[in-house]
Amino acid sequence: MEKLEHIGIAVRNLEEANKVFARLLGREPYKTEEVESEGVRTSFFDVSGIKIELLESTREGSAIEKFIEKRGEGIHHLAFAVSDVRESLQEHQKAGFQPINPEPKRGADNKLISFLHPRQTGGVLIELCQDIVSP
Amino acid sequence: MEKLEHIGIAVRNLEEANKVFARLLGREPYKTEEVESEGVRTSFFDVSGIKIELLESTREGSAIEKFIEKRGEGIHHLAFAVSDVRESLQEHQKAGFQPINPEPKRGADNKLISFLHPRQTGGVLIELCQDIVSP
Repeated sequence: MEKLEHIGIAVRNLEEANKVFARLLGREPYKTEEVESEGVRTSFFDVSGIKIELLESTREGSAIEKFIEKRGEGIHHLAFAVSDVRESLQEHQKAGFQPINPEPKRGADNKLISFLHPRQTGGVLIELCQDIVSP
Repeated sequence: MEKLEHIGIAVRNLEEANKVFARLLGREPYKTEEVESEGVRTSFFDVSGIKIELLESTREGSAIEKFIEKRGEGIHHLAFAVSDVRESLQEHQKAGFQPINPEPKRGADNKLISFLHPRQTGGVLIELCQDIVSP
């Protein structure tokens, strides 16, 4: 875990939430991105180098939709930057944590990502993310 | 909102959670502090300048106890550093946000703190915190 990369927040409506967080944080989102594989539309705010990612579900049954149904809007995950997501996953498995997706997948913001199950992490969904570097 | 200062995580048992987060984050907590006025015991981890604060309830009916009863362990709040918490509260009230404690109170880590109600902030409990500077 090299650094906190972003904080993911589940929202019902991205346009509305963008307005709320722009007022709250005193700045506009710097980009919006759709991640079809995850069934989400996301926007990003930069607060002194930490990204706040808002996530809206675009597909019935997506992880974000399920989260909101169960708990309402709110903080969904913490993402930590790692240099090698597969290596980091292995280390965390050895340390007793359980991956949700043992095979990393492509996430928003040009990252390769895997999640650790909140059962072992004090109820906090943890994302490990690695920059995808073009050759 | 100058920067993200810390992320507060509600836990049932601070000793157990310290072990879990030490394994997860690959480092030990750098301090533990009791905040009697809030009915919590806290520990702090530093991840490249962002603090992860674990909070255990020490008093029946504390905010952390209520949170865990309702939602289980997990992320409780995001705290942003401000230079003047009263001024920041006023600005946020003008922008439509509702303070939970309009009069700032003393929190952990030598801070003057106020919270904004999650009803207006996409379900995210927001803490505004200002360093208490000794004269």
